[in-house]
Amino acid sequence: MTSSATPSNAVSNAVGELRALLGDRLSTSAAVREQHGRDESWHDGHDPDAVAFAKSTEEVVAIVKICASHGVPMIPYGTGTSLEGHVAALHGGVSINLMGMDQVVTVNQADLDVTVQAGVTRKQLNIHLRDTGLFFPIDPGADASLGGMAATRASGTNAVRYGTMRDNVLALMVVLPDGRVIRTARRARKSAAGYDLTALFVGSEGTLGVITEVTLRLYGIPEAISSAVCPFESVAGAVDTVIQTIQSGIPVARIELVDEISVGAINKYSNLDYEIAPTLFLEFHGTDASVAEQAEMVGAIAGENGGGDFRWTTVAEERNKMWQARHDVAYATVALRPNCRLWASDVCVPISRLAECILETKKDNDESDLLAAIVGHVGDGNFHVAYVVDAEKPEEVAEAKRLNDVLVARALAMDGTCTGEHGVGYGKIDFLVAEHGEAVSVMRTLKRALDPDNIMNPGKIVRL
Amino acid sequence: MTSSATPSNAVSNAVGELRALLGDRLSTSAAVREQHGRDESWHDGHDPDAVAFAKSTEEVVAIVKICASHGVPMIPYGTGTSLEGHVAALHGGVSINLMGMDQVVTVNQADLDVTVQAGVTRKQLNIHLRDTGLFFPIDPGADASLGGMAATRASGTNAVRYGTMRDNVLALMVVLPDGRVIRTARRARKSAAGYDLTALFVGSEGTLGVITEVTLRLYGIPEAISSAVCPFESVAGAVDTVIQTIQSGIPVARIELVDEISVGAINKYSNLDYEIAPTLFLEFHGTDASVAEQAEMVGAIAGENGGGDFRWTTVAEERNKMWQARHDVAYATVALRPNCRLWASDVCVPISRLAECILETKKDNDESDLLAAIVGHVGDGNFHVAYVVDAEKPEEVAEAKRLNDVLVARALAMDGTCTGEHGVGYGKIDFLVAEHGEAVSVMRTLKRALDPDNIMNPGKIVRL
Repeated sequence: MTSSATPSNAVSNAVGELRALLGDRLSTSAAVREQHGRDESWHDGHDPDAVAFAKSTEEVVAIVKICASHGVPMIPYGTGTSLEGHVAALHGGVSINLMGMDQVVTVNQADLDVTVQAGVTRKQLNIHLRDTGLFFPIDPGADASLGGMAATRASGTNAVRYGTMRDNVLALMVVLPDGRVIRTARRARKSAAGYDLTALFVGSEGTLGVITEVTLRLYGIPEAISSAVCPFESVAGAVDTVIQTIQSGIPVARIELVDEISVGAINKYSNLDYEIAPTLFLEFHGTDASVAEQAEMVGAIAGENGGGDFRWTTVAEERNKMWQARHDVAYATVALRPNCRLWASDVCVPISRLAECILETKKDNDESDLLAAIVGHVGDGNFHVAYVVDAEKPEEVAEAKRLNDVLVARALAMDGTCTGEHGVGYGKIDFLVAEHGEAVSVMRTLKRALDPDNIMNPGKIVRL
Repeated sequence: MTSSATPSNAVSNAVGELRALLGDRLSTSAAVREQHGRDESWHDGHDPDAVAFAKSTEEVVAIVKICASHGVPMIPYGTGTSLEGHVAALHGGVSINLMGMDQVVTVNQADLDVTVQAGVTRKQLNIHLRDTGLFFPIDPGADASLGGMAATRASGTNAVRYGTMRDNVLALMVVLPDGRVIRTARRARKSAAGYDLTALFVGSEGTLGVITEVTLRLYGIPEAISSAVCPFESVAGAVDTVIQTIQSGIPVARIELVDEISVGAINKYSNLDYEIAPTLFLEFHGTDASVAEQAEMVGAIAGENGGGDFRWTTVAEERNKMWQARHDVAYATVALRPNCRLWASDVCVPISRLAECILETKKDNDESDLLAAIVGHVGDGNFHVAYVVDAEKPEEVAEAKRLNDVLVARALAMDGTCTGEHGVGYGKIDFLVAEHGEAVSVMRTLKRALDPDNIMNPGKIVRL
């Protein structure tokens, strides 16, 4: 879909200046624009008027100043793997592609931190770190850019142990909507020196500025890593195992629920033979002794909750295959119905309500004609529902919307959130008042203060 | 010191309305005002015009609305244990004492969280939790209120393992400068639903609103806890032990440096007999096996760095005595010179620079005539210098100021921060531009947006 609410002469003047700045790194081709206006979600794409491919913070500054001077909206763009329409150019404007900023700036091995340009992806970073004994754990599935992961407060399978991007970004370099550049913090592990600008920009989805550099915490690669797959008689048994594990303080590195529909999809997609049952995928990090101890404790809890045999994979290659299968679950699920799209929603609730929330959601899904699978980072109380929708059939889209509305309302009623990790984009913008009430007006005040002309990714998180 | 920059008729009108609201819970007595205008720091006190003792969020709303309608400044007040003049009424106004809001609202044992009113102290909370098997770890030394700890982004001895208030506040209830009430987040463990208002208010030092309720993460009391004291031949050896411990990923719960001056002060103050040497105080949390494993690993590192015998205290009573002595170090140090005050500064640097930073600082202190002791939460790269100053002698105050300026400049040059945990108040406000540069203008923008009349604790963090 093409859309532009910005006066065309403003856009064409800006595009002219950008072309003078960037040469052939400024594109107005239909294919490039279409690609940059759409993410991996079911949400309608909205093409930007142009795409600027930036190579440095200085170039981003120049791009931002040009756009700002013409009142033209800007949308920062990384790998386009967001799930709530974050990159859609709702009001036209210029998509700023940051993937050319792909340099690891500094590895501070002794301090367990690294500074990267925004376009470095998480896998690229871990390859770069290979000889240091360190790694960056946050793993949202997609090989997303670290700038994008910061901008969307990404999370994923490891968050139960290592936290989310909120916990692992030490500092950011940000280009503000007027072209000023700030660094939000120093490299010290903690600070009480003023407002937490780092946290304000983490999760701001490009609506307050363009993140061009990210300083991240790193971790030592654990001495021992072991993974396991364990089927359960029921979803309730699997979820209760998770809850009791977390409540016991066992520091699992990953504890993922994959429902029987998703297991079937994985088996078919990746040619595997997991038992078709609600299943936990687990990983333990630590010393040899502590990994064995953790596994034993979780094994005992699982046994009391109808868990079957643990299928262990201590070999790195096996482990990678297993987690690749877990990460591919979205593609595997959508592959169950040809020519369909995935509507991937996510909510997060206090863990005491997790079993109830998942079971009621599963009942809704079972009663619907729509194919819907559940997977989740359940150690955080976070789970996903993947609705497989034929976008050509309005009744299917309407049914997905109905189920998603019920899901979010249920999570909010349980003191949970409308999104644990996918973010707001424009797909969840209408749930924010229900979740935050008056606090949304504070978010609006912040947005107006930092982006008074509403040119940074307008129409996302809050509407003005 | 009495100070009021607010027109006296505005103040007297506000005080009249507050007295009608609160009766004898509105005080204008000189003693009460003086007590509320001064914290535990060396900074000059500035008396508020009145002190309002609030019992509920609704009362805080009423107080804020009265003050706002008259343009009268407000300063939230907890235990008054801040260290950079946070509570000084620089422009007069009304101190809002929140210690009457002392109720634990809800313990969610299964979710490992708790909601408390702002005036509940950390020790009160842990007593309340005694039968649950859970505890709240953050321990800044003083038995501070949890509202105050959130407002100042408090930290302390346990932060190396459990993080700071930034990491442990799940949600806040805040009364905004115009009397609106917001809740910054739900109880879900993570969320990607909009700007991180929780993090914005944590560490805002009462400059953006009044925190009236705090939702906190809790932790299971570890199966095993063991503590140790270990003297070293040199400060360098002690600090290198810390650095190597952190770099090895050993999850120590506490690792505190106490220099030989501080050890002497502790011995005298608490009638103890620790060897007069640079010393590490350590604590390990975990299962029996993991605690033993951690202690063995740290012991080996210490041995390679000139560490002497570990003096173990596994008995809870012994352990408490040891940590009480550590917590009393400020009082013990100031007791070394009668009629003096303590100027307690703190900085935090990347851990690779910690040894260099501490050694150069120690050299400065040794070359000065002023008595100065160093202690620190060194696992975070955070340490304190306590200057013992005769406030009647301007040359001593000037010397402390000189040493502190050098200390902060050194920390900033090492990519560190001017305060790891004490905060800005008005004592460190002049270092903020040197630390953050243009980002301070963003902080000013946020302050103006949320408190356009500059009535919430004016003159702290940023000057307008």
